[in-house]
Amino acid sequence: MTRTRRPRGFDEADAVALFAARFGSGRTPDVRLGIGDDAAVLNPPPGRLVWTVDACVEGSHFERSLLSLEEVGWKSFQAAASDLAAMGAVPIAALSALELPRGFSRDELDDLATGQALAARSARCPIIGGNMARAEKLSVTTTLLGRAYAPLTRAAARAGQELWLVGEVGLAAAGFALLRSGKRARLSAAAGRCVRAWRRPEALLRRGQALVGRASAAIDVSDGLAGDVAHLGRESSVKVVIEEAELERSLAPELVTIATKLARPALHFALYGGEDYALLATGSAGRRPRFARRIGRVERGRGAFLESAGALSPLGAGFDHLSRPT
Amino acid sequence: MTRTRRPRGFDEADAVALFAARFGSGRTPDVRLGIGDDAAVLNPPPGRLVWTVDACVEGSHFERSLLSLEEVGWKSFQAAASDLAAMGAVPIAALSALELPRGFSRDELDDLATGQALAARSARCPIIGGNMARAEKLSVTTTLLGRAYAPLTRAAARAGQELWLVGEVGLAAAGFALLRSGKRARLSAAAGRCVRAWRRPEALLRRGQALVGRASAAIDVSDGLAGDVAHLGRESSVKVVIEEAELERSLAPELVTIATKLARPALHFALYGGEDYALLATGSAGRRPRFARRIGRVERGRGAFLESAGALSPLGAGFDHLSRPT
Repeated sequence: MTRTRRPRGFDEADAVALFAARFGSGRTPDVRLGIGDDAAVLNPPPGRLVWTVDACVEGSHFERSLLSLEEVGWKSFQAAASDLAAMGAVPIAALSALELPRGFSRDELDDLATGQALAARSARCPIIGGNMARAEKLSVTTTLLGRAYAPLTRAAARAGQELWLVGEVGLAAAGFALLRSGKRARLSAAAGRCVRAWRRPEALLRRGQALVGRASAAIDVSDGLAGDVAHLGRESSVKVVIEEAELERSLAPELVTIATKLARPALHFALYGGEDYALLATGSAGRRPRFARRIGRVERGRGAFLESAGALSPLGAGFDHLSRPT
Repeated sequence: MTRTRRPRGFDEADAVALFAARFGSGRTPDVRLGIGDDAAVLNPPPGRLVWTVDACVEGSHFERSLLSLEEVGWKSFQAAASDLAAMGAVPIAALSALELPRGFSRDELDDLATGQALAARSARCPIIGGNMARAEKLSVTTTLLGRAYAPLTRAAARAGQELWLVGEVGLAAAGFALLRSGKRARLSAAAGRCVRAWRRPEALLRRGQALVGRASAAIDVSDGLAGDVAHLGRESSVKVVIEEAELERSLAPELVTIATKLARPALHFALYGGEDYALLATGSAGRRPRFARRIGRVERGRGAFLESAGALSPLGAGFDHLSRPT
């Protein structure tokens, strides 16, 4: 860790200086040793440790024609932070493993690190080390440590509980579809909101933390509501029903506008679009926080379903970054 | 985390089942929640947390023509574990972030995971989650958490102390050079040992742990003795001198044999070859463990030098994976 393997255009000392400038010292009461040694050293937190890793890969998760390097830095960090949000955890620190293509310049590295640093600041989570390697394509892998006294899992949804949506879904996928469609000549406010949702998502860390003690189970909606509802149901051994009318009511007007423009159902983006980093949770009606919206229910049984006009239809798979044509 | 993004050839359920079969449940007294949720959950250890991330990238760290997938899995894990060894830490758990090229098959994933699992077992460090993404080239990023009451750093070498080598250097680079030279028709025992050093390195975790309380500073020799000695000197603000005669005496006879065959100085492999995952440490003569060999000394001043026949020459940069032609 923290060993920087030098691409051309800048040397190791340059990169370390740049990271130090962008990421700061990383010193918090939890962090005893940051960038510059074989590994980082931290004080163990109270409660439990919550630990995740997530990758953002050029050609799979993004194209550089659609996302600036600063946005790549921002978004890759938020995607990892969203896993902590879903556990109700408070971030402690992050490590960043970069794969940089040949010819990646110091200025490009600076843009990328700036985006990471901004996201890290928004999450109050210092980046305290990492790794650099050369590769054919740009890739940013972020590992985050957090703490939680009672982490939320996917496995504790119970029949009789409500299904809650925290945040909004569909906007990011609509924004991405819009960018790919090339229909960007006059960027309306609605288009801007959707594109921003895709480019600048923000992990719902505080809301995730506020779900602890209220929700029974939670998951982040990174790959699409349909697929993530199915995950939740499977891990909890319950049947989960999304009520179409409730989900429709939750949709942002900007999503509806852009879906119409793209001649696709808004509900499609909401169910099968990914990368919004909303949260899905379950809990008793009486414990639902004001920021959570009821969009369905948990029943005995198995499977994930959409209820439309009283009829249940099984929900297909979620959004898959790997099969997406880019 | 633990979200598996599905490449063709196997689906998410296949991959999760495969990881579960290869990695086991990952349950130890430290691990409260493993593969299958948004993040892993652990009990905080006593002492300090030591945390690293390391990547092994096709085309940069390896070519699949020279390294089997099982070896890629093994080696990528050991490279990350070596960072913990250098800190004197005991591994707790690992997460594995895979980037898989299109067409990567279930059997290939199995080979890779088998190598990771074998390495994890050798390090007594369960793999408890990770991430999968599609990419152009294969890449394995491993993040490890460990614990140590008094982690060794690079910054505590002091003038008057000895420079110690733990393990052997140069063998892996000689093995790699041999593989690339194509001179493999009759694999001698010496060749076999060098090739094995490159393909199957093993992090010196137990020796690293045994350095705690004896060594003042430590670093792993992943990028070459010359460069890593320079890192140690810089972080400790001291001058480090490698005594050529002592280093020569430490060289494995197999390295000398293969270097001769390749018509290159054995010392070159020892100083500038990487990937042996030996450890370099400093400490007082009286505290040197039997498994550590004195190869030089620490003095007041700055810089890293090689002393040959009484004359000092500055040591150049270490081995650089990024600039290596592959």
